[in-house]
Amino acid sequence: MKTNLTIDPARLWSDLMETARFGGTPGGGINRQALSVEDGQVRGWFRQQCEALGCTVEIDRFGNMFARRPGQDNSLPAIGFGSHLDTQPTGGKFDGVLGVLAGLEVMRTLHRAGYVTKAPLELVNWTNEEGSRFSPAMQGSAAFASLLTPEATLNATDRDGTRYGDALAAIGYAGELGPGSRFYSAFYELHIEQGPVLEAEEATIGIVEAVQGIRWYDVTMTGTSAHTGATPMHLRRNALVGAARFTDAVEAIGWEVKGGVATVGSMVVKPNARNVVPGEVVMSVDLRHPDDDSLTLMDQKLNAALARIASELHLEQAINCMWYCPPVKFDTTLQAHIASAAAKYGYKTRNLVSGAGHDAACIASIAPTAMLFIPCAGGISHNEAESSTLEDCGAGAQVLLDAILARDETY
Amino acid sequence: MKTNLTIDPARLWSDLMETARFGGTPGGGINRQALSVEDGQVRGWFRQQCEALGCTVEIDRFGNMFARRPGQDNSLPAIGFGSHLDTQPTGGKFDGVLGVLAGLEVMRTLHRAGYVTKAPLELVNWTNEEGSRFSPAMQGSAAFASLLTPEATLNATDRDGTRYGDALAAIGYAGELGPGSRFYSAFYELHIEQGPVLEAEEATIGIVEAVQGIRWYDVTMTGTSAHTGATPMHLRRNALVGAARFTDAVEAIGWEVKGGVATVGSMVVKPNARNVVPGEVVMSVDLRHPDDDSLTLMDQKLNAALARIASELHLEQAINCMWYCPPVKFDTTLQAHIASAAAKYGYKTRNLVSGAGHDAACIASIAPTAMLFIPCAGGISHNEAESSTLEDCGAGAQVLLDAILARDETY
Repeated sequence: MKTNLTIDPARLWSDLMETARFGGTPGGGINRQALSVEDGQVRGWFRQQCEALGCTVEIDRFGNMFARRPGQDNSLPAIGFGSHLDTQPTGGKFDGVLGVLAGLEVMRTLHRAGYVTKAPLELVNWTNEEGSRFSPAMQGSAAFASLLTPEATLNATDRDGTRYGDALAAIGYAGELGPGSRFYSAFYELHIEQGPVLEAEEATIGIVEAVQGIRWYDVTMTGTSAHTGATPMHLRRNALVGAARFTDAVEAIGWEVKGGVATVGSMVVKPNARNVVPGEVVMSVDLRHPDDDSLTLMDQKLNAALARIASELHLEQAINCMWYCPPVKFDTTLQAHIASAAAKYGYKTRNLVSGAGHDAACIASIAPTAMLFIPCAGGISHNEAESSTLEDCGAGAQVLLDAILARDETY
Repeated sequence: MKTNLTIDPARLWSDLMETARFGGTPGGGINRQALSVEDGQVRGWFRQQCEALGCTVEIDRFGNMFARRPGQDNSLPAIGFGSHLDTQPTGGKFDGVLGVLAGLEVMRTLHRAGYVTKAPLELVNWTNEEGSRFSPAMQGSAAFASLLTPEATLNATDRDGTRYGDALAAIGYAGELGPGSRFYSAFYELHIEQGPVLEAEEATIGIVEAVQGIRWYDVTMTGTSAHTGATPMHLRRNALVGAARFTDAVEAIGWEVKGGVATVGSMVVKPNARNVVPGEVVMSVDLRHPDDDSLTLMDQKLNAALARIASELHLEQAINCMWYCPPVKFDTTLQAHIASAAAKYGYKTRNLVSGAGHDAACIASIAPTAMLFIPCAGGISHNEAESSTLEDCGAGAQVLLDAILARDETY
């Protein structure tokens, strides 16, 4: 049974702007890190909106929020969709938020029309997708999909030593449901591209075929703190020189292994004083590749470079691969639903591999899953300047609705 | 008139251990940064001890403390000696503190003996020698010697934006005396070597001929923050890769210009998140050389390296040489007094160039000045593990006393 339900782009845009005030920054972005006070505020707003539409909101042990709208046959597995409401420390207004609020717009459209799907629907807000306060990224969806243990998730600590579990309880979102508390016959995630391809090719909808694999590392290099003036060059064990050469080696790995990216994103120097030769440096490394063998090659090069540099400079080193997410291929049937929906409205599409990780990549391990992208200006993301248009956000939400209904009609 | 006054090494050691509790760290060091609460505490202790010995304590606008002991003829310029009571964030128990407390032991020895010198004596605690909270280092002695303006000194801010002048007032040590409030016919500073030479050669007293010149810089490299997963290598403007190559270039300058040292001591990365390509890095650079032409060459190489690296990586850069202290040669007559005093007690001596900057290097621009060193274990300094022995500390204080009296006898 085909429908002609249409979403309201202006209402969606209004929600995006309204929620942007929870953690809004002077630079026009959002600082709403996972399990912060501001995360608690936006969660409260989200729960209220869903309940006003007749949805039941359930919360699991990891703080993941599931807003359920009953279908005609509630014994069927639900059709899920959603993304995340947390942001980077200097994040924008669309990364993650769009996928949740477009899902809310889908719920509103169905509610206003009094349309009841065959299967129940569930809109999900996954906890800590960004991974900038607690590590790794996609922690909530990974814990839900049993890719992380509950203990590892709840005991993760931020830089101040605060536990994930304690921060979650403090904002009042520690539920009782365990991992895999529901089954999905399909899961869709709408997201901004966070890259420049759709904009450059003037495409409105990106159909995501795959997500590249990710390896995250914590690396420490240790030398000896010493006086900068009184310690001759040949008697130094300068941890920052080691960290510098290692950072450059990571950059080289990103160029050498074609199709991959490699980054040192954070670096903390101790004691970090102007006149002390640095004695210790702690860094993070992020390696990504769509091909798992290539990702393994990058891992080998990384370990070899670290050992070589530490040896040359007489430093100690420690490396811990604290997260590995293999490359993911999305469900082709759901991709076809997205393509059909886009075609119905005349939106130009482009098939893509996602450079960023997403909650959908975790859910793909336990349910048929797909993602759709819309463009963002200049491909800029994880930045206060991140932007997208009302029209593109509306197009994404409309295609999301139609793809959900297409899956529902197969029952 | 020769004297046989002898200092009490055990009393000096007891003072060193007693004051180490002001800012004492679990690792056995001291964190007593300039104008902190702990700095205020040790200043209060110091003032009380000096006043108990009949000294008058005066304070200037920069917080420098002058404990004056009258002589037979108080119209003579004073003979000065001292060092600093502030420490690095993870400093040791001897750097600076020894020079002040050995001076206190000199005052105590004279007081017990009822010995009155011809000229008045002044024991000085200079403010913020370390330069780790406020920049530059040797700020109090440089302001006293008019190498810095009073405004630049009092308006210097720490990382939290607190002004030097406000922090000084908060601990109650903002006096009214201006720069150059007193003249010295001689100034001596006793200090630990902070390098490995004396220990290696089993010498007890280092006679410091000169202090190498210093240039300090603030450097910023700016690129664009972007998503680590979605931004291909060729589209990045990664500020941390620039900072890494620059750090390695600074290291190379230290090796290329023989006799010099070059260090990046601090580095702050923004936004410093695991999955964001760094958009900005702020660094400090410390260049030192005993020869001023060589220091100029190092400066030229530094600027050239920064411009080249920023250009290669399409980054913006900014560099500010925020402090320059030319190489200093100490007074040869005062060096001879130190050598004679050491010979009197049979202490092996070694002539040295100081790698570290010292308050005495500033005072040398307005008064005859000299320094003496004692060994420290392994040459380790600016480190909680910094250590020296009771015997060596006592030897330094004894030679200091005799060198002061030798100068006094020339009147």
